[in-house]
Amino acid sequence: MRLKFPLMAIVLEIAMIVLFALFVEYEMDQTTPQQVNITTSTDMGKFLELYPLFQDVHVMIFVGFGFLMTFLKKYGFSSVGINLLIAALGLQWGTVVQGILHSQGQKITIGIKNMINADFSTATVLISFGAVLGKTSPTQMLIMTIIEIAVFAGNEYLVGEIFKASDIGASMTIHAFGAYFGLAVAGILYRSALRRGHKNEESTYYSDLFAMIGTLFLWMFWPSFNSAIAEPGDKQSRAIVNTYFSLVACVVTAFAFSSLVERRGKLNMPLFTTKLGIHDTCGVHNLHGLPGVVGGLAGIAAVALGASNTSVAMQAAALCSSIGTAVVGGLITGT
Amino acid sequence: MRLKFPLMAIVLEIAMIVLFALFVEYEMDQTTPQQVNITTSTDMGKFLELYPLFQDVHVMIFVGFGFLMTFLKKYGFSSVGINLLIAALGLQWGTVVQGILHSQGQKITIGIKNMINADFSTATVLISFGAVLGKTSPTQMLIMTIIEIAVFAGNEYLVGEIFKASDIGASMTIHAFGAYFGLAVAGILYRSALRRGHKNEESTYYSDLFAMIGTLFLWMFWPSFNSAIAEPGDKQSRAIVNTYFSLVACVVTAFAFSSLVERRGKLNMPLFTTKLGIHDTCGVHNLHGLPGVVGGLAGIAAVALGASNTSVAMQAAALCSSIGTAVVGGLITGT
Amino acid sequence: MRLKFPLMAIVLEIAMIVLFALFVEYEMDQTTPQQVNITTSTDMGKFLELYPLFQDVHVMIFVGFGFLMTFLKKYGFSSVGINLLIAALGLQWGTVVQGILHSQGQKITIGIKNMINADFSTATVLISFGAVLGKTSPTQMLIMTIIEIAVFAGNEYLVGEIFKASDIGASMTIHAFGAYFGLAVAGILYRSALRRGHKNEESTYYSDLFAMIGTLFLWMFWPSFNSAIAEPGDKQSRAIVNTYFSLVACVVTAFAFSSLVERRGKLNMPLFTTKLGIHDTCGVHNLHGLPGVVGGLAGIAAVALGASNTSVAMQAAALCSSIGTAVVGGLITGT
Repeated sequence: MRLKFPLMAIVLEIAMIVLFALFVEYEMDQTTPQQVNITTSTDMGKFLELYPLFQDVHVMIFVGFGFLMTFLKKYGFSSVGINLLIAALGLQWGTVVQGILHSQGQKITIGIKNMINADFSTATVLISFGAVLGKTSPTQMLIMTIIEIAVFAGNEYLVGEIFKASDIGASMTIHAFGAYFGLAVAGILYRSALRRGHKNEESTYYSDLFAMIGTLFLWMFWPSFNSAIAEPGDKQSRAIVNTYFSLVACVVTAFAFSSLVERRGKLNMPLFTTKLGIHDTCGVHNLHGLPGVVGGLAGIAAVALGASNTSVAMQAAALCSSIGTAVVGGLITGT
Repeated sequence: MRLKFPLMAIVLEIAMIVLFALFVEYEMDQTTPQQVNITTSTDMGKFLELYPLFQDVHVMIFVGFGFLMTFLKKYGFSSVGINLLIAALGLQWGTVVQGILHSQGQKITIGIKNMINADFSTATVLISFGAVLGKTSPTQMLIMTIIEIAVFAGNEYLVGEIFKASDIGASMTIHAFGAYFGLAVAGILYRSALRRGHKNEESTYYSDLFAMIGTLFLWMFWPSFNSAIAEPGDKQSRAIVNTYFSLVACVVTAFAFSSLVERRGKLNMPLFTTKLGIHDTCGVHNLHGLPGVVGGLAGIAAVALGASNTSVAMQAAALCSSIGTAVVGGLITGT
Repeated sequence: MRLKFPLMAIVLEIAMIVLFALFVEYEMDQTTPQQVNITTSTDMGKFLELYPLFQDVHVMIFVGFGFLMTFLKKYGFSSVGINLLIAALGLQWGTVVQGILHSQGQKITIGIKNMINADFSTATVLISFGAVLGKTSPTQMLIMTIIEIAVFAGNEYLVGEIFKASDIGASMTIHAFGAYFGLAVAGILYRSALRRGHKNEESTYYSDLFAMIGTLFLWMFWPSFNSAIAEPGDKQSRAIVNTYFSLVACVVTAFAFSSLVERRGKLNMPLFTTKLGIHDTCGVHNLHGLPGVVGGLAGIAAVALGASNTSVAMQAAALCSSIGTAVVGGLITGT
């Protein structure tokens, strides 16, 4: 029984190495020397240019998501550790699956964009992890990582390549997908004994401070997340500016509504546990699911209005999103 | 009563959105297509080039200042939270006020430099926050943020544009200004009952470690802070090199003097509480006020000496600054 | 007696300032104006291009190494503090010693590469610090910093310039050197009373979480460490890609073997204390010494096999390295 986890982990890692040996190449490997050189010089310039954005996303994945979940007083250490394990496996698997789908029979050439996309695919599992934290074993998490990233890559290929839908900020393919996948798994694992919460579902003063480290790094580097794979130049800097101002507008309104909803008027990090018969440890429904859906709708609205100044539209959308989330969350919590 | 904070926060956020809609444009909006395109291609290259420096400053504002103030055992969580609130509001307000002053009647075009400058304006309030931490309500902090940033932007415009004074490291406009503004507010809020300190003004082992996270991120990214808006090329890299070597020289001398002043010869983070009849929670007088003034004087001295090698001058200045701060701080503490 | 540390620190800092005044110049100082300008424009472009990688390495040195050693419940705060002191002194001394060796009688011109190399020289002392943590005074650490960096710079000059050996990842000159230097010092300081461990050699729940902050920042930014001074373009991005995939492969196998070795099958951060008659507080033998030697051997093997795809070779090497470390560590611990 205690051999199950190490054996599965080693078998999966050997499988990854075999897959890399079969399918993966450097961006540099020259099959047609003269032609490739041109692409190369541009791509290599881009490598170091996008590398700081990649590292921001990387910090979000490992420090951001890792410490976000330390608020549970008994699961702090294991949440950071399992977050690291999931992400490390997911990065390799995401590189392979996404690469196979997008390379159309050719070898996968690894560059900075693949590395950023691999981080994105991992983000999906880490969002879902928030819904099942403390209810799953490391072995179950390995299986969930393999399945969810395969489904995510397929879904993202469908949305982006077949339907040609634009979803740069990935509000649908990453946030909504990750949140509802996690809630589905939590629904399956649901035991009625958890209806009134679990005694370990508590936070302490210091665990909250550790969670703030995660929250802040996720929050600060979100502009990098939303812009890392955008078209260079104009669109990329707009993605940065828009995300930046949406985030700050969100903070002010979130504090306002948190204080309004909270009985004693105190400031609290809003974390409304939904009671839909599904036990959602980290509140991913409110954190990623609803804003993901609202983000999608806001995008449609912004395009419909032909918004010349999307920054303002985004700030307004963020305001609405916060209000919507707070009201829905508040209503659900109230009952 | 408990509606005061949420209502004020929402009203301020709506005001920000209205101000953005009225005054703010993207750096890209083409009024005179052919002319702007040239500026644009250069500016966009600069956007991604300066973006890592912006993110360093951003980490200083949210993680640096946020965790710096967690050393107070009872205010750790709320200091991180209110730091986030102040900065999020301040960023928007700073963008608008600084933009209006510098754009001379035109629309404000948002680029990476505006975002860095908005972070700077926020830094002023966060320095002042150090002097009043634990003595003010969130509502009072919202008011202080609005007033102080308006005064800061006016003062900086006066110093930089009217007096044409060079103050790249911002030792006067940010550090000295922020420190003495905060002390002035603390002086107004001062209650004689606080003369002997407050029982909550204590730190614990873990709260000190959290404060070290803030301290280190502030310390490491200071070269980015001092160079982010410097002229590209020569001057920018000199600002980085000078700040870097000044900082390391400061650490060695600070440890030496801390050990000398401390009774039992132990190493301690120096935090001398001034007793000028003003209760200065975070010791901003010594952290920002004195070094700000000394930094200004050192700058004058360096220019006067026609220093060809300012790096050495800065290391020497840092040494003097530490000695000065320690001696003055020690004398004040001694009485 | 209590004057020993402050006096030594101040004397060392004054010595550094004198050495800088005598030997150091800006990269910009124009001796032959027209010729230098060309170099300058390229070098200055590189300054800002490599600056994000430098900051990643800087975070590894101060947050990474600093918090890595907070797991000891009684030495958390002093380990972060002394880490800061050592690094601040070491950076200045490393700049001077490396500069003198490489500049061949000319003045040392300070650029971004010198700053990165100074961080590297400091890493050596911080690795050694892990072996003697809690057994040395700050004064002893100042002396060790001065001696070890001088020996390191000499050794690195010998390996790189005289023997012309390629060691970009620095598995030998930094990791193996730092580990065995530290163990040698620990061997000298060894007292037989420590044979059964020390009562302060314990960790607590929160100290482990703080140590995870250090571990994660070291782990995430390792690609920057390995690539920062590589040749630009092709080689630099390969160094990033290889380190990245080696690191994720390492995590999965490390978790697997940790769970296998651990009695109750639980996941633990592996830290096998060697029992060679030397008391190795932080397990640097396993963390840096063995992997450093294995990394060297793996490099030789990879070159021998003419590996066209070193990424796979590195993943495989990482797998072997983990297995080797776990098996050797396990055997030693078992006895």
